[in-house]
Amino acid sequence: MEKATALAKLKALQAKMHAYNHASSMIYYDAVTTAPEGTDEGRGETLAILSGESYHLFINPETDEVLSTLEACIDELSEAEARQVKLLRRSYKKTCCIPQQEYMDYQLLVNSAESVWHKAKNENDFASFAPYLEKLVETNRRFAAYYDSEHHPYDVMLDDYEQGMTRVELDRFFADLRAKIVPLIETIREEQAAVRDDFLYRHYPVEGQRKLADRLMEVMGIDRSHCGLAETLHPFTITFNKNDVRITTNYEENSLASSIYSVVHEGGHALYELNTADEFENTCLAGGVSMGIHESQSRLYENIIGRSRGFSAIVYRLSREIFPEQLADVSEEEFYKAINKSIPSLIRTEADEVTYCLHVMVRYEIEKALFDGTVKVADLPTVWAEKMKAYLGVDVPDDAHGVLQDSHWSGGSFGYFPSYAVGSAYSAQIAAKVGEMIDFDGCVARGEISKITDILREGLYRFGCLYDPGELLARFCGKPFDPTYYTDYLVKKYGK
Amino acid sequence: MEKATALAKLKALQAKMHAYNHASSMIYYDAVTTAPEGTDEGRGETLAILSGESYHLFINPETDEVLSTLEACIDELSEAEARQVKLLRRSYKKTCCIPQQEYMDYQLLVNSAESVWHKAKNENDFASFAPYLEKLVETNRRFAAYYDSEHHPYDVMLDDYEQGMTRVELDRFFADLRAKIVPLIETIREEQAAVRDDFLYRHYPVEGQRKLADRLMEVMGIDRSHCGLAETLHPFTITFNKNDVRITTNYEENSLASSIYSVVHEGGHALYELNTADEFENTCLAGGVSMGIHESQSRLYENIIGRSRGFSAIVYRLSREIFPEQLADVSEEEFYKAINKSIPSLIRTEADEVTYCLHVMVRYEIEKALFDGTVKVADLPTVWAEKMKAYLGVDVPDDAHGVLQDSHWSGGSFGYFPSYAVGSAYSAQIAAKVGEMIDFDGCVARGEISKITDILREGLYRFGCLYDPGELLARFCGKPFDPTYYTDYLVKKYGK
Repeated sequence: MEKATALAKLKALQAKMHAYNHASSMIYYDAVTTAPEGTDEGRGETLAILSGESYHLFINPETDEVLSTLEACIDELSEAEARQVKLLRRSYKKTCCIPQQEYMDYQLLVNSAESVWHKAKNENDFASFAPYLEKLVETNRRFAAYYDSEHHPYDVMLDDYEQGMTRVELDRFFADLRAKIVPLIETIREEQAAVRDDFLYRHYPVEGQRKLADRLMEVMGIDRSHCGLAETLHPFTITFNKNDVRITTNYEENSLASSIYSVVHEGGHALYELNTADEFENTCLAGGVSMGIHESQSRLYENIIGRSRGFSAIVYRLSREIFPEQLADVSEEEFYKAINKSIPSLIRTEADEVTYCLHVMVRYEIEKALFDGTVKVADLPTVWAEKMKAYLGVDVPDDAHGVLQDSHWSGGSFGYFPSYAVGSAYSAQIAAKVGEMIDFDGCVARGEISKITDILREGLYRFGCLYDPGELLARFCGKPFDPTYYTDYLVKKYGK
Repeated sequence: MEKATALAKLKALQAKMHAYNHASSMIYYDAVTTAPEGTDEGRGETLAILSGESYHLFINPETDEVLSTLEACIDELSEAEARQVKLLRRSYKKTCCIPQQEYMDYQLLVNSAESVWHKAKNENDFASFAPYLEKLVETNRRFAAYYDSEHHPYDVMLDDYEQGMTRVELDRFFADLRAKIVPLIETIREEQAAVRDDFLYRHYPVEGQRKLADRLMEVMGIDRSHCGLAETLHPFTITFNKNDVRITTNYEENSLASSIYSVVHEGGHALYELNTADEFENTCLAGGVSMGIHESQSRLYENIIGRSRGFSAIVYRLSREIFPEQLADVSEEEFYKAINKSIPSLIRTEADEVTYCLHVMVRYEIEKALFDGTVKVADLPTVWAEKMKAYLGVDVPDDAHGVLQDSHWSGGSFGYFPSYAVGSAYSAQIAAKVGEMIDFDGCVARGEISKITDILREGLYRFGCLYDPGELLARFCGKPFDPTYYTDYLVKKYGK
């Protein structure tokens, strides 16, 4: 095959794969935002067919030949073309290395495990889920070895969510967290418990919260002609292409901050997607590069910007305009303290900025031990309770509020959790770098968020998936990932 | 190819085509209900790719061989299989008979014609649209001959929307309409003009109209777990599969009846789709058989049921519950008269039950003459005005309110309009047949709509596309299409 032919085929292949992905994502988006409840079956049939069509489009001798042709002349390709070849080969190899029967068996296992987990969580019955978790760990260990038998299986899995991330790097990161944040939590416990936040849980009608969400997206500089806002139980961001991104939120009538910060969080994801380069559209370089970098942006807008003094004042002002009665007796200072209140708790998804990463650390240590074989599945409830007590000082009353709380493991996702914490840590290092270039706090206080977004677009967003996350971060920051930016940030914010 | 192989391939092919159609329809549905305004481009690219994939899946030597194999043993197939082969061969032939370059040129022509028409309508400038209309007529005449040179091109086009429908049958239908309805309109003009309907145009907040729409769907027996309701400028019904149908409506704050009757109209389409046979799912026999039969069901629920005395009383009661103040001074009798008020007007889409079909007749006579060559495009404004005066007694002030009002011709749709009128006529014949089987008016008055729907499901809906529309109607009614049921119904309702 000629190089030019191979390049043309590579482009057409990626455009088609993007179209299938667009279609399937749209059907998913409809399902969670709009579809009537009794419509699962037909949707499942269509998604299965589209997934099969997309699989056969990608996995076939011609794709292999296209990639081999281009690999043979990789030095003659542009940086973007070479990267596409590399990423597609990785994906091709990952898909092909698992024997078909084993893959199908695994799909069945995951299906069962998910429903068993749901039931186990509702009934607080870890024992019924344990055998499934054992099989999931064992199968994922085996699959990791099919793809790469030279590295530790957990490193192979980490690489799935955050390319290049390893246990060595995470150990270093979490050691720093453990050393600084565990004592910090102890230090601030009493003072934080006394912070007044009753007013955040008054009655806030949904219609007003919708207005507030619109205003917040405006302040963030999100172009609504390319970014929709819908309502779902669990907020998320989905990208059909860089000019068509949708975020969702969930309005609770008795909680003001919940939807505010989910909008700002998802808005951060959206700004990343909206500002990737045009030239990568319809290729595998389009969109955000990894879970960790993505989470760094959502956390940067949600916490570093969103819960700063300057932004808190803006949120306070907008909230008072829409809910004057509910906030009549609340000062700007009280509002700031309330949205930053930190209390160790049992549930990760409800955790505050300080304690969140320790929840992730518990999961990281357990995952690592499971794949090292140093902890048995049967012992997880005990191990979980011990770690929660040691790091967060809380007593775990039952497994539903402990080891059974997250869905990730039941779906076979191991190595996913660390990206949440890594993202928060990236965000502090990135914000520090932006702060070297412009007056970060001043921009936020003046509502000039787009000045920050402009720097992030030029230094991070526009590169899409051109670089591995670690390289992208190092290029922007001028040095490799350094977790101390994050711990220093937390200690400075909460320690004073 | 073996018969069994061909049947298996036929099934797989149709399932895949259904999946592509599901995906494309979902992207379209999102576009008109939810998508941000600046998202056209990426959507267009994806739809073009999916359409190309679906085309190549269908049009290829293997499909031809599958169809030929099954055509050779058509007598050994089940009724449904034989019908699938027949319909797919028709579609295959229609798609293949047009030379590719001519088809692409036509797509460009339609694209231009649609935007020229938009501008022409806004600027009331028929002359600018005329050359495009001439080319559209000429191209459609040529394409019709490619497919079937033995029949009149307009008959070939009519067959596209209503299989088996011909000018002979339509001439007979419209002659009956002309003879009975044109004088009827004249007779009732003064009395109708005096009917009080001011209260329908009071302030009706959208939130209340939404509640009313939910109640109406409930009364109609529409299963909301399989039928969604969304809001769009122009109401429509879309089917992803028989368990996932969506209707839309448009709420106007200063009009009560508009959204009520669009919900009931689209609800009729939805009941048809929701009640087709399970066994036809994922084949070309799924869903409603033709434009005309579909419109017969929407009009049956909207007019024959929806504007009857019995249903009007239900609508009146529900409306008074939600809008007690707005309807405080209105009696049930006044409400019934108001929703049935008939006034000849200029715009088809705003026409009432009596005058609607005459608007269609004007278009039918013009289309027929265009394809006969007995009327020139340049003369259409004059011809239009003459016919509107003769049939409806109205003076056409300009082309925007005349020949330029509908989008159909600019999209190359000729032969589509008659199906609107034919549907209304079918609905009267079908309702008469139902009335022979059960107490139609009594069921409606008692809100037992599902008793009527049950009969329609057993006699019409479940057959999907198994029979041509004319045959389906004749099987249900026990005799062929007879337009006098419709004219008799109108004369009886309005003549008394």
